[in-house]
Amino acid sequence: MNILILGSDGYLGWPTAMDFSAKGHDVTVVDNYFRRRACTDMDVEPLFAVPNLIERARRWQEKTGKVIKVVIGDLAEPEFARSLFSGSCKYGYPLTGGTWDGVPDAVVHYAEQPSAPYSMLDYKTSTLTIQNNLMVTTNLVFAVRDLAPDTHIIKLGTMGEYGTPNIDIEEGWLDIEHKGRKGRFLFPRAAGSIYHTTKVMDTDLMWFGARMWGLRVTDLMQGPVYGLETPETLMDEGFKPFFNYDEMFGTVVNRFVVQAVAGYPLTVYGKGGQTRGYLNLKDTLACVELAAANPAGVGELKIYNQITETFSVNQLADMVAKVGRGMGFPVEVKSIENPRKEAEEHYYNPVYTGLKELGLKPNYLTDEVMAGMFETVIRHKDNIHSHKIFRGVKW
Amino acid sequence: MNILILGSDGYLGWPTAMDFSAKGHDVTVVDNYFRRRACTDMDVEPLFAVPNLIERARRWQEKTGKVIKVVIGDLAEPEFARSLFSGSCKYGYPLTGGTWDGVPDAVVHYAEQPSAPYSMLDYKTSTLTIQNNLMVTTNLVFAVRDLAPDTHIIKLGTMGEYGTPNIDIEEGWLDIEHKGRKGRFLFPRAAGSIYHTTKVMDTDLMWFGARMWGLRVTDLMQGPVYGLETPETLMDEGFKPFFNYDEMFGTVVNRFVVQAVAGYPLTVYGKGGQTRGYLNLKDTLACVELAAANPAGVGELKIYNQITETFSVNQLADMVAKVGRGMGFPVEVKSIENPRKEAEEHYYNPVYTGLKELGLKPNYLTDEVMAGMFETVIRHKDNIHSHKIFRGVKW
Repeated sequence: MNILILGSDGYLGWPTAMDFSAKGHDVTVVDNYFRRRACTDMDVEPLFAVPNLIERARRWQEKTGKVIKVVIGDLAEPEFARSLFSGSCKYGYPLTGGTWDGVPDAVVHYAEQPSAPYSMLDYKTSTLTIQNNLMVTTNLVFAVRDLAPDTHIIKLGTMGEYGTPNIDIEEGWLDIEHKGRKGRFLFPRAAGSIYHTTKVMDTDLMWFGARMWGLRVTDLMQGPVYGLETPETLMDEGFKPFFNYDEMFGTVVNRFVVQAVAGYPLTVYGKGGQTRGYLNLKDTLACVELAAANPAGVGELKIYNQITETFSVNQLADMVAKVGRGMGFPVEVKSIENPRKEAEEHYYNPVYTGLKELGLKPNYLTDEVMAGMFETVIRHKDNIHSHKIFRGVKW
Repeated sequence: MNILILGSDGYLGWPTAMDFSAKGHDVTVVDNYFRRRACTDMDVEPLFAVPNLIERARRWQEKTGKVIKVVIGDLAEPEFARSLFSGSCKYGYPLTGGTWDGVPDAVVHYAEQPSAPYSMLDYKTSTLTIQNNLMVTTNLVFAVRDLAPDTHIIKLGTMGEYGTPNIDIEEGWLDIEHKGRKGRFLFPRAAGSIYHTTKVMDTDLMWFGARMWGLRVTDLMQGPVYGLETPETLMDEGFKPFFNYDEMFGTVVNRFVVQAVAGYPLTVYGKGGQTRGYLNLKDTLACVELAAANPAGVGELKIYNQITETFSVNQLADMVAKVGRGMGFPVEVKSIENPRKEAEEHYYNPVYTGLKELGLKPNYLTDEVMAGMFETVIRHKDNIHSHKIFRGVKW
């Protein structure tokens, strides 16, 4: 397949690109390095430096003989976004021979400001998040409608769109019976941050595109991802993705492992009963692949809940503490005043069978997986700056 | 009360401003004249010229002795939007003495690109609609949160957010029982145009603001408005609001009356069974006043379905034809191929009791009301350009 990956500089984008390339697909990646700049601006750079996309593509070709094409630009600009579907884009790699392969079979859309705390910092970062995320999705929807209507859009949503409702969370849709009549609707959304709310708006727009113009869309409602290892990230130190351990851009499991290694008490917010669905980085790649291999039909919005198991924050902290202590770290768990406005104890029962039915074989968060994460972090422990771990962005 | 009206150059904004001013409230109006420019750009100017806002405010003061303050600027610019709540805005009228009265008690938000067909014309107008409407609402939400948290936001939504579901449309919220558990959720939305979808996104954002930051918000889910007359519009020819009769910016009843007068067959799209809720311009003002007099509480999102009766397009065409023929016009009704993608026959049963419970006394669409609209249109019939009536913007 010919795959276009938007937002490929990030934690998930680059491993996804290598995965598809390793399996023989034609891959083009796009980014504007927003995430890099934001990490520098906020003084929360990741645990280890990550080469730029062109440098990574060069090393990838050296190691594997395969070409990942790179285009650098801002997808919030309509004409830039359209250039990817018309062949008028300018390739950053390869410098010669970066020619367009025609409209992609699938486009994987990761190109959003991905941090909930960043989106809640102040009105400027909130507005930037809304503006950036909505405009990238808007430009993608119209570019595909106008220039590549058969292209399958694989959009990364988030389980956070649903919030923590008092009823079971179905996979995207809900059959409702009301006053003796029946209808099928998008499962009600009530997100917990501005970032998550932009994903709700994305879903509004993509569903409109599917039912009005026959777009083919898969919306993957993903939970927080953890881990660093895929077969490809092990090939070269430069192939590891961004690994943030700060409150802003780090996901919770990754952060807890770094805190354990750094001797920083694990930051449990409030009562720690906040329950979410999680998945291993390897499973993100498997899910995106399964989505690409099972495209939505014309006018169909497929929605999957992309998680493999659920944990409360307390359970995660206990798991990290147990593995860390087994490795000799005197891990402390500390409840701090919750900077977020969220339920600290709540009902949570999401359905997540769709991707398993397509063939997903989950990599669960075992002690061994956790120990592997510890080992990577330990190798880079001199880079940990404890003062960057927590700043208390208030909701 | 101290009332700020955003988007006051438009069909509803200016009559609302006069209504509040006539009743003794302190009124400040804001616009960037987008609607004027768009009408000129698209060659669909209204039935008669409308003086600019400053000129209208000047005449209003001459006739009534009351001051409506005017600020001209683009609410999609964050700093401009914030200046209205910090007192640093620049007044266009009065030229001297335009001083800030402090944070408003209520802000009425009409400041959006209001046309569904315009939003569906091409990717540029679609993108402009999403960008403009979301950014104005975003800037308003953050300005109120940061600078005027007690201000009551009265937001004009649309019944079109709900679409035409197979179940009764409740007023904004729906109690759902699912697998033996219960929850209360926003009524599911599924809008029929990009414009209407931006209103869904607005609701997503304002509900987030209410539950997360305690904002006080009333969302008025309005149907298409018809009419020209309010006590104030009759005081001066220059006080009439924009009256568009084209497919782009005209609402359906207004358009049909002009078509009848112009001898242009009434343009019924497809089967004409499309049913919607409608209301008189006078009732829009009454509803906004009722919303202002009954503010949402801290953290409350109040939602009302702002319509007074429902009609199918065929019913409206028959009513216009009957009144028109009675006045001597040989009105023809003609079904044309539907340029929109919409159900032409569907279930439609919205609840709209909330505003009546607050005291709304509806002005129904009687033959007399229709005849009054005919009389106004007849006075301006030399301004009707038949070729501007229909251009067939495809969905």
